[in-house]
Amino acid sequence: MLQSRLFSKTLRDAPKDEETANAKLLVRAGYVDKLMAGAYSYMPLGVRVLKKIEQVVREEMDAMGGQEVLMPMLHPKANWQATGGWDSIDVLFKIKSRTEKEYALGQSEEEVVTPLVMSRIQTYKDLPVAVYQIHWKFRDELRAKSGLLRGREFFMKDMYSFHESQEDFDRFYGVAKQAYLKVFERLGLVAKVTEASGGSFSEKISYEFMVLTDAGEDDILYCDACEFCVNAEIAKQKEKDACPKCGPPNGEARPKGGKGSLTKARASEVGNVFDLGQKYGKDFDLAFMDREGKRQYPVMGCYGIGISRLMGVLAEKFHDESGLLWPHAVAPFDVHLLRLGSTSAKAAADEQGTSSSPKASTVAKALADETEGHSTGSEVYQDLQAAGLTVLYDERAVSAGQKFADADLIGIPWRAILSPKTGDKIEVKRRGSDDVKLVSVSEFVKMLVS
Amino acid sequence: MLQSRLFSKTLRDAPKDEETANAKLLVRAGYVDKLMAGAYSYMPLGVRVLKKIEQVVREEMDAMGGQEVLMPMLHPKANWQATGGWDSIDVLFKIKSRTEKEYALGQSEEEVVTPLVMSRIQTYKDLPVAVYQIHWKFRDELRAKSGLLRGREFFMKDMYSFHESQEDFDRFYGVAKQAYLKVFERLGLVAKVTEASGGSFSEKISYEFMVLTDAGEDDILYCDACEFCVNAEIAKQKEKDACPKCGPPNGEARPKGGKGSLTKARASEVGNVFDLGQKYGKDFDLAFMDREGKRQYPVMGCYGIGISRLMGVLAEKFHDESGLLWPHAVAPFDVHLLRLGSTSAKAAADEQGTSSSPKASTVAKALADETEGHSTGSEVYQDLQAAGLTVLYDERAVSAGQKFADADLIGIPWRAILSPKTGDKIEVKRRGSDDVKLVSVSEFVKMLVS
Repeated sequence: MLQSRLFSKTLRDAPKDEETANAKLLVRAGYVDKLMAGAYSYMPLGVRVLKKIEQVVREEMDAMGGQEVLMPMLHPKANWQATGGWDSIDVLFKIKSRTEKEYALGQSEEEVVTPLVMSRIQTYKDLPVAVYQIHWKFRDELRAKSGLLRGREFFMKDMYSFHESQEDFDRFYGVAKQAYLKVFERLGLVAKVTEASGGSFSEKISYEFMVLTDAGEDDILYCDACEFCVNAEIAKQKEKDACPKCGPPNGEARPKGGKGSLTKARASEVGNVFDLGQKYGKDFDLAFMDREGKRQYPVMGCYGIGISRLMGVLAEKFHDESGLLWPHAVAPFDVHLLRLGSTSAKAAADEQGTSSSPKASTVAKALADETEGHSTGSEVYQDLQAAGLTVLYDERAVSAGQKFADADLIGIPWRAILSPKTGDKIEVKRRGSDDVKLVSVSEFVKMLVS
Repeated sequence: MLQSRLFSKTLRDAPKDEETANAKLLVRAGYVDKLMAGAYSYMPLGVRVLKKIEQVVREEMDAMGGQEVLMPMLHPKANWQATGGWDSIDVLFKIKSRTEKEYALGQSEEEVVTPLVMSRIQTYKDLPVAVYQIHWKFRDELRAKSGLLRGREFFMKDMYSFHESQEDFDRFYGVAKQAYLKVFERLGLVAKVTEASGGSFSEKISYEFMVLTDAGEDDILYCDACEFCVNAEIAKQKEKDACPKCGPPNGEARPKGGKGSLTKARASEVGNVFDLGQKYGKDFDLAFMDREGKRQYPVMGCYGIGISRLMGVLAEKFHDESGLLWPHAVAPFDVHLLRLGSTSAKAAADEQGTSSSPKASTVAKALADETEGHSTGSEVYQDLQAAGLTVLYDERAVSAGQKFADADLIGIPWRAILSPKTGDKIEVKRRGSDDVKLVSVSEFVKMLVS
């Protein structure tokens, strides 16, 4: 895409009403625009990142046997009354039609998915079933101030599984845990799995997938030697205690190599699993025939991954003082190609003084045909795209300094510079690295595609 | 996908509470499930069709220079007060938070997109701009009874364009019209473009893209010789009148070959364009600097295509008494592969008597290894997928009659049968045709891929 035509412009300064790094950077770099607290518009760059995260999640859910569905966001009041949520869930948005019909706006979908799935289940042989959707949800939050981390309206993957027994849920949870860890690994994150209370959903233990970040809303205690991790809210331990899993405190025999102690850290929840037990089957009185021929309620699990929240967490994790550093898997483009113009282009840009100047942009178009004997920007742009790479091509007639600053802010993994000095080659470097290389276009393609 | 594992089952009978062909067929064939009037869940087959339609629309919007964004569905009351819509639009859902903040649920996005775009427009050189989103919308309909044709919650592509002048809007409308006609052509539809009143959006003329179908909600008059078409509501002509465009009634010279007369028909609106004039720029007092250096309000256009409605219209247009006949571009799979089992499989199926029997399905798995010397179903299934085709593989141990009935109902464009009789070949036919061919798998792939 030509940057002069991109409907997203960088801002010199961070918006004053944003407190968190993700919101400041995503707004400044032109990924999102705030409509009101807790509700953002996604600009073209932001849509690209959101869809990349969505697709990674979809692939892993499909791979573990989940089947994609889409359920309505308007829910009948009766379904929420059946489960008690209508009166007990304070973040539930309620809405009344002009004929006085009442609805809830979906903030979780047990109330819809339970009747949907159970109407198609006769016996234990139809189980297990796992369906998921990637859809928008609403929460009537009192405060929504952490950018994409806590929205009144947010994009989420929610999966629901149905089992004939607790054992089968436990087995399936193991499969889901691995799929979740793979999702986060593909996104460049290391997630820790904690146990926490089940919140409003369940009295059972739930599992949270946490990523360490200063912008997080939770404190976790994690072992520096094994995978033990617990939400500090419900932990029986405190910081610097021996790990209860690999380094028991009471002089008991330690597992081989076990010597962990606990570290406390701020973390952000990027996924969760709730063991719902038989609550929802019972609430709706929807059962199946078990192996003994008796009516039985299904054991259900609920598995969430916040897609828009992940975008915020990635921005929190991957940035420096100059801007964003997207992991390749979610970057809006593979390559940011910068054409550094002739002196006249620079002069025009300096004269205008802003990156969004339309006059400078017009000059850039006039300068599109460059000195013979060099690669032209549009040739390189086309060659990179022909090799299957997605490219944001900065052909604007603004100063080199402005282009560098915008490239750092936008945070595309590879920057490629074409200038009179680079001749037939391009000068490439990774965002966040100082290691600059002068290579041919085909060498560059090999570096990226291999 | 293995049909035994598909979370969608066909129903013998149409649901009693549905009146239209699209709702009856889509529910029976397992594409959608009704949560309440006007709100449907999309099952795995339905999600596949919806996403295919979405992608066709996205490609054509991108090709004409539209840029994809995503705007919130919760809108601040103030934005709707600025345009008068808060009080004047009766289908607007209104919602109150627990702290008494009021929001509208998006039913169109002028109230959000105008400030979003105009905050980034300084002068006429920044124009035109066209942004679009593919997103869910809500309408507080008094009656919602036509399946996917009129939902309280529906999936839609809405594009908004901003221009420095009426002339530039007119030019852009011509581009958008061609893109729209291409979308409908790719979906196998012939759309007619009518002029109608602008409804609540505008007092200007609007354009509607109509598809002829008995389930439609509008009457149109169209010429049988030229492209003239008008919504009967605002037409000055009546049926059998001479066409005012190519066959003027008053003895005037007819254009060469012009000899049309008007036919009346039921039609369903699948897209629309509203010339919004300067209303929204004025309402928000958001202007740009024009060529004379004066503050000027943008001329805006709004362009809708109903994605979920299109799924309903396609079901209305493409079905027969046995079920659906999806055009290839939107079919959930390319090929429906049916394995017709041995006598024992048939017996097991007959014994069970239903298509969704889990016991029969278990038997099918036991029968997965077939007689040597023949192609096995799983081999053909894998070969077709390796050739890049998407395949629904009916390996259930139900009767041939049940498999044929389900295949007709689900409506995948190609049916391929593998049985002891077909040996190493497969018997293929198009849905809706009686022309059966016995071909090798590679010959079949050539037929489809070429």
